[in-house]
Amino acid sequence: MLNVGVIGCGGMGRDHISRLTNKIQGAQVVAVCDVFEESAKKAASICNAKVYTDEKLLINDPDVDAVFIVSPGFAHVEALLEAIQAGKRIFCEKPLCTTAEDCLKVVQAEVASGKHLIQLGFMRRYDVGYAKVKEALLSGEYGEPLMLHCTHRNPEVGTNYNTPMAVHDTAIHEIDVLHWLVDDEYESAQVIMPRVTKYSHSELKDPQIMLLRTKKGVCIDVEVFVNCKFGYDINCEVVCEDGAIKMPMATVYPTIRKNASVSTTIDTDCFVRFKDAYDAEVQAWVDDAAKGEINGPNAWDGYLAAITADALVKAQQTGAIEKINAAVEKPDFYNK
Amino acid sequence: MLNVGVIGCGGMGRDHISRLTNKIQGAQVVAVCDVFEESAKKAASICNAKVYTDEKLLINDPDVDAVFIVSPGFAHVEALLEAIQAGKRIFCEKPLCTTAEDCLKVVQAEVASGKHLIQLGFMRRYDVGYAKVKEALLSGEYGEPLMLHCTHRNPEVGTNYNTPMAVHDTAIHEIDVLHWLVDDEYESAQVIMPRVTKYSHSELKDPQIMLLRTKKGVCIDVEVFVNCKFGYDINCEVVCEDGAIKMPMATVYPTIRKNASVSTTIDTDCFVRFKDAYDAEVQAWVDDAAKGEINGPNAWDGYLAAITADALVKAQQTGAIEKINAAVEKPDFYNK
Amino acid sequence: MLNVGVIGCGGMGRDHISRLTNKIQGAQVVAVCDVFEESAKKAASICNAKVYTDEKLLINDPDVDAVFIVSPGFAHVEALLEAIQAGKRIFCEKPLCTTAEDCLKVVQAEVASGKHLIQLGFMRRYDVGYAKVKEALLSGEYGEPLMLHCTHRNPEVGTNYNTPMAVHDTAIHEIDVLHWLVDDEYESAQVIMPRVTKYSHSELKDPQIMLLRTKKGVCIDVEVFVNCKFGYDINCEVVCEDGAIKMPMATVYPTIRKNASVSTTIDTDCFVRFKDAYDAEVQAWVDDAAKGEINGPNAWDGYLAAITADALVKAQQTGAIEKINAAVEKPDFYNK
Amino acid sequence: MLNVGVIGCGGMGRDHISRLTNKIQGAQVVAVCDVFEESAKKAASICNAKVYTDEKLLINDPDVDAVFIVSPGFAHVEALLEAIQAGKRIFCEKPLCTTAEDCLKVVQAEVASGKHLIQLGFMRRYDVGYAKVKEALLSGEYGEPLMLHCTHRNPEVGTNYNTPMAVHDTAIHEIDVLHWLVDDEYESAQVIMPRVTKYSHSELKDPQIMLLRTKKGVCIDVEVFVNCKFGYDINCEVVCEDGAIKMPMATVYPTIRKNASVSTTIDTDCFVRFKDAYDAEVQAWVDDAAKGEINGPNAWDGYLAAITADALVKAQQTGAIEKINAAVEKPDFYNK
Ligand SMILES: NC(=O)c1ccc[n+]([C@@H]2O[C@H](COP(=O)([O-])OP(=O)(O)OC[C@H]3O[C@@H](n4cnc5c(N)ncnc54)[C@H](O)[C@@H]3O)[C@@H](O)[C@H]2O)c1
Ligand SMILES: NC(=O)c1ccc[n+]([C@@H]2O[C@H](COP(=O)([O-])OP(=O)(O)OC[C@H]3O[C@@H](n4cnc5c(N)ncnc54)[C@H](O)[C@@H]3O)[C@@H](O)[C@H]2O)c1
Ligand SMILES: NC(=O)c1ccc[n+]([C@@H]2O[C@H](COP(=O)([O-])OP(=O)(O)OC[C@H]3O[C@@H](n4cnc5c(N)ncnc54)[C@H](O)[C@@H]3O)[C@@H](O)[C@H]2O)c1
Ligand SMILES: NC(=O)c1ccc[n+]([C@@H]2O[C@H](COP(=O)([O-])OP(=O)(O)OC[C@H]3O[C@@H](n4cnc5c(N)ncnc54)[C@H](O)[C@@H]3O)[C@@H](O)[C@H]2O)c1
Repeated sequence: MLNVGVIGCGGMGRDHISRLTNKIQGAQVVAVCDVFEESAKKAASICNAKVYTDEKLLINDPDVDAVFIVSPGFAHVEALLEAIQAGKRIFCEKPLCTTAEDCLKVVQAEVASGKHLIQLGFMRRYDVGYAKVKEALLSGEYGEPLMLHCTHRNPEVGTNYNTPMAVHDTAIHEIDVLHWLVDDEYESAQVIMPRVTKYSHSELKDPQIMLLRTKKGVCIDVEVFVNCKFGYDINCEVVCEDGAIKMPMATVYPTIRKNASVSTTIDTDCFVRFKDAYDAEVQAWVDDAAKGEINGPNAWDGYLAAITADALVKAQQTGAIEKINAAVEKPDFYNK
Repeated sequence: MLNVGVIGCGGMGRDHISRLTNKIQGAQVVAVCDVFEESAKKAASICNAKVYTDEKLLINDPDVDAVFIVSPGFAHVEALLEAIQAGKRIFCEKPLCTTAEDCLKVVQAEVASGKHLIQLGFMRRYDVGYAKVKEALLSGEYGEPLMLHCTHRNPEVGTNYNTPMAVHDTAIHEIDVLHWLVDDEYESAQVIMPRVTKYSHSELKDPQIMLLRTKKGVCIDVEVFVNCKFGYDINCEVVCEDGAIKMPMATVYPTIRKNASVSTTIDTDCFVRFKDAYDAEVQAWVDDAAKGEINGPNAWDGYLAAITADALVKAQQTGAIEKINAAVEKPDFYNK
Repeated sequence: MLNVGVIGCGGMGRDHISRLTNKIQGAQVVAVCDVFEESAKKAASICNAKVYTDEKLLINDPDVDAVFIVSPGFAHVEALLEAIQAGKRIFCEKPLCTTAEDCLKVVQAEVASGKHLIQLGFMRRYDVGYAKVKEALLSGEYGEPLMLHCTHRNPEVGTNYNTPMAVHDTAIHEIDVLHWLVDDEYESAQVIMPRVTKYSHSELKDPQIMLLRTKKGVCIDVEVFVNCKFGYDINCEVVCEDGAIKMPMATVYPTIRKNASVSTTIDTDCFVRFKDAYDAEVQAWVDDAAKGEINGPNAWDGYLAAITADALVKAQQTGAIEKINAAVEKPDFYNK
Repeated sequence: MLNVGVIGCGGMGRDHISRLTNKIQGAQVVAVCDVFEESAKKAASICNAKVYTDEKLLINDPDVDAVFIVSPGFAHVEALLEAIQAGKRIFCEKPLCTTAEDCLKVVQAEVASGKHLIQLGFMRRYDVGYAKVKEALLSGEYGEPLMLHCTHRNPEVGTNYNTPMAVHDTAIHEIDVLHWLVDDEYESAQVIMPRVTKYSHSELKDPQIMLLRTKKGVCIDVEVFVNCKFGYDINCEVVCEDGAIKMPMATVYPTIRKNASVSTTIDTDCFVRFKDAYDAEVQAWVDDAAKGEINGPNAWDGYLAAITADALVKAQQTGAIEKINAAVEKPDFYNK
């Protein structure tokens, strides 16, 4: 039984606490922490856990085997460094940290610790759709991947959502999952800005087409359209030398004949679309903990995501093709 | 150039006259006939043809090479016998005749004439969907057909449409096309009467499930639902020993993402759904005329359709499995 | 924590033991029983439980809160009666019992006990596909159901599989799930025997078309084809007054473009197809236990399945439409 | 009856001669011309026409009402100028001419003639799939188009096919049809070069992603992959403010269940995929001739295609975003 301490009891924190309590085998929440005691208490009531308002105390509580970080991104770095020092196993919601520099610090601290401790909350790798595409790619039946055509469409966003958030809050999931899918790293980024939808506002260019090139030359286009109105519509097609592989829609919905049309429902909510993936990522982390392994997205992936996001945000402004260069070579520690 | 005389200038007659005039290569309408002179004149204006009110005169006009019968079913028998006697090539809209007895008379007259003259207007055999299924069956790749699951759905019918018309006016197309598809003849018929839709009326049991068994033991179910509301929805799946083959929907319609759904249009009109099939059947008849051949549905098929329809109407009343027996053996004349 | 004792440690028994141990929240296996001690011991090693060879001892063990019956169908009746008497909560794999008489005995014993104790292992009700169809039906948007078109196709069976097993081992799942789907009971049954596939043998008529009519007049056809070769292919379309609803294929598989075709995988194994349903039925039973409820298929459903199966087997032999009559009225106990 | 003279009796020329002779209503081929007399004679035998080896003589033959140019692209300009001067109606296979300068000369000659004479052979505008997408766009139901995602995939090409041909011979069809679809003109072009497939050769970068931006800001990506191996796979999705519209695949093919998969055929031949479009474009030209109109792609479209192709070829080399500027303003003559 893995005894987990959860830091950050907002929407996502409570969601993970319920998950750990009601769905996951082999783990239990023994402590929760929020800077607002009220929030921590409310969360503690789900799982009957100790309440903290100082994450350092939770991290160093000897009853806590593992730390689950669900505070806002800016708060991750401190919690991560503390937990690494304490030698605790860590699940950290995305992003690893909000700057590439901080990500690198965390990477270096983990390497220095000599132990694989951190799994990052990029849940899409645990979606059965992506997993089956990866399986097909690994089968060798389709040759090398050459191009990926993807969409990340979302019904609508609030007025506080602005142009860079299309990278940091939305495309960030593609950034992680796509390079994993083709087992490669990114080399450059470009962003194309089409005509803006009437449903957007002055601070948001919506939609955008993000272009990524990997080191092996795979070219990726991702349509990011956060006010598409019609649904939460995630697509991914991998075009290979010997065939093209398209991720299935998550069709648990019936096909309806009515009013001169045949139709199927599209999800409108990312938490519905990736429901099973969230469960699977946490279960995998718990299962891997028992073996002392990290098989999901790790701190290095978090660093790569950060530098890629930086390049995309720069490309949003320059309109040019921006290079993506890691400041250090990939530590051998992360090569399996 | 095949000089055609058209008998019957109602809705379908005018439709065929336009077709022969504007779309078909190698034929022209030189004479038209309707018992109502007005109707004939109106039709003649489409194609600049002679006007008759007596079909016998049209049939025997030496300028007429071929007779195209589009009068109501009850009027077909007389025109057919006259045209056979005149040795003219014939296209006859379905049904051949309204009774099995009359159909047999026509069959016998054609056999006696020694010439293959009659093609019957069962246009579905010329639909590219059915044709591709037949092609697949003939490829041998799927083994023997064992079962057919079909639907004949129609948005709605008028209040004059009654229970037997579900056979005579609706299922009649399946009766012809399905035995052709599997190259077989029918042995027995049954009709199942489900709960009646609220959109029907006292004289019409709607929907119905019609069951047919062929001599080789292929079992066919056809859902006939004429007030299904949602569309004109024709489906046909052939389950074979080594695979199942489903006729494509005639999807010339885009796939639309809107309002949390992905949808495609279903046709609502049989004349739209089988538009190309009507053109193709007439073109094939014209082309075959030049070779003195009939390769489409022939008079014997018309007779089989009549006895099958009779058995289904009987089965509607008895609820029992009704045998389908031809009164005579298939004349060798119709075996190729 | 529900302490479960499992009776029957064959293939399915061990599967449920793993499930209860590794996937289900709120339950644990504390005792296992098999007439073969070896089998029981092997199973016990999965979950670290007491070993019995006499089911009566297991049932009456005070450490056992709930009894999970996974012995062969013929052995269910004794275990059920004993467990009812002991007042234990029960999960019983399908079938309830192998004869309608025994089923009725169990029903009456449960009613006499005054407690809802038995959930039956018809897992399809917990499949997300069926659940979404049911949801659509309950929405009222489609009016009343009129017809169901279903297939139960299976790649192949062994030579010991014979004609009645098409009912007892295969269609039995449709028998339960379809009347639940339309919230109705069956009135009559018929079986149609098409031409036999070359892959069958003398004791097995394969495929078969099973026809069921419900009391409200819903007409159901189920193609049962156990040597269809191509896959485990479960389909269900409900045709209603205001639209038709087709269950989704369980498509977690990518769409592949290769060799001039676009294709998707069909499952070939029922345990893969209904993987999640097995987990969900057991979790629901555990969750309901805490509330003292049975919301899944109950003993009365088991009785209905038995008399329906009997009628279908008779219909296989007679070729006639066979009535389905319960020997007693539905006890009020089972009406919610 | 439109009397047509055909110039160029190669593969495509003979194809059009058969079409005009056997499928098209209201036209006949009265003269054919090829620089090789043998070729002209062979073609003449299809349609029983006069034979020329000098296109000028054919063009000025008073029996010829309309000139159909199917010589190689480089030979179009002379024939076009001669035919304009003769005041003959013209169908010219794509490209209008091989240089933008020549295209402009032809445009100016047509404008000077004061008569709309030239239809260009971009047949995709007559494909029912594109036509239905255009219809949807014009309905206003989906708001303004923002992005187009397209593929032009082809099974394989010969070794003489090189990088610029991906523009001139392949993407040229998208260049014409896409700006027509969204009723807009192009502003700039970019080409992205992914990793090259193992099936390509040193002179051909395959695949390529071509990016076009229109004056209204619509952003288009076209995957051009001419050795994709699996099929001739043309896709086009238009993402609008209020919904996304995807062109239907031309599915006349059945859905097959076999070998654990459900599949449908993809075409492998562009002449099969666009069969009906070729017929429709020529029929429309003949029908419009009677009215003295050109409603299909015209000389100005031919000029736009030329400058767009030039920009794409330049972009293939530079990797940069290249402007697309017409040398002259669109003559009012071409605005309807
Ligand atoms: N993987 C996904 O799809 C996904 C989805 C949503 C959110 N997230 C991530 O989850 C994290 C939390 O998101 P959220 O939506 O719950 O945010 P939130 O703002 O609703 O909640 C964050 C909570 O953390 C608390 N907090 C802040 N600093 C803290 C600290 N130092 N110590 C303890 N508590 C602290 C806040 O008081 C708040 O209650 C973010 O990193 C976000 O990116 C991931
Ligand atoms: N294949 C199909 O899908 C399809 C579809 C519709 C109709 N049809 C068939 O086409 C035929 C005509 O149908 P319709 O809808 O045009 O009917 P309609 O009643 O509209 O027209 C029939 C016309 O024939 C005329 N007529 C009647 N007796 C005549 C006679 N002895 N000589 C000359 N004219 C005569 C009538 O005055 C009328 O104008 C029928 O056989 C019908 O079953 C086939
Ligand atoms: N819901 C489904 O989809 C599904 C699938 C497979 C099996 N089943 C059901 O599960 C049950 C078991 O099937 P199986 O395939 O595991 O059979 P099995 O024959 O492999 O296993 C049955 C086991 O029960 C033992 N047993 C027999 N009588 C016993 C008794 N009185 N007490 C204790 N143990 C006894 C046997 O020794 C054997 O080990 C059956 O009722 C079957 O219908 C359901
Ligand atoms: N729309 C399409 O999809 C499509 C497809 C294929 C070809 N095409 C176009 O059709 C045209 C012809 O292509 P093709 O494949 O038939 O080429 P081809 O080389 O097979 O045939 C061209 C013929 O024109 C003859 N010719 C050359 N110069 C001539 C002249 N001045 N006068 C008379 N004849 C002359 C040649 O001898 C040859 O027989 C080209 O413009 C090509 O781009 C269009």
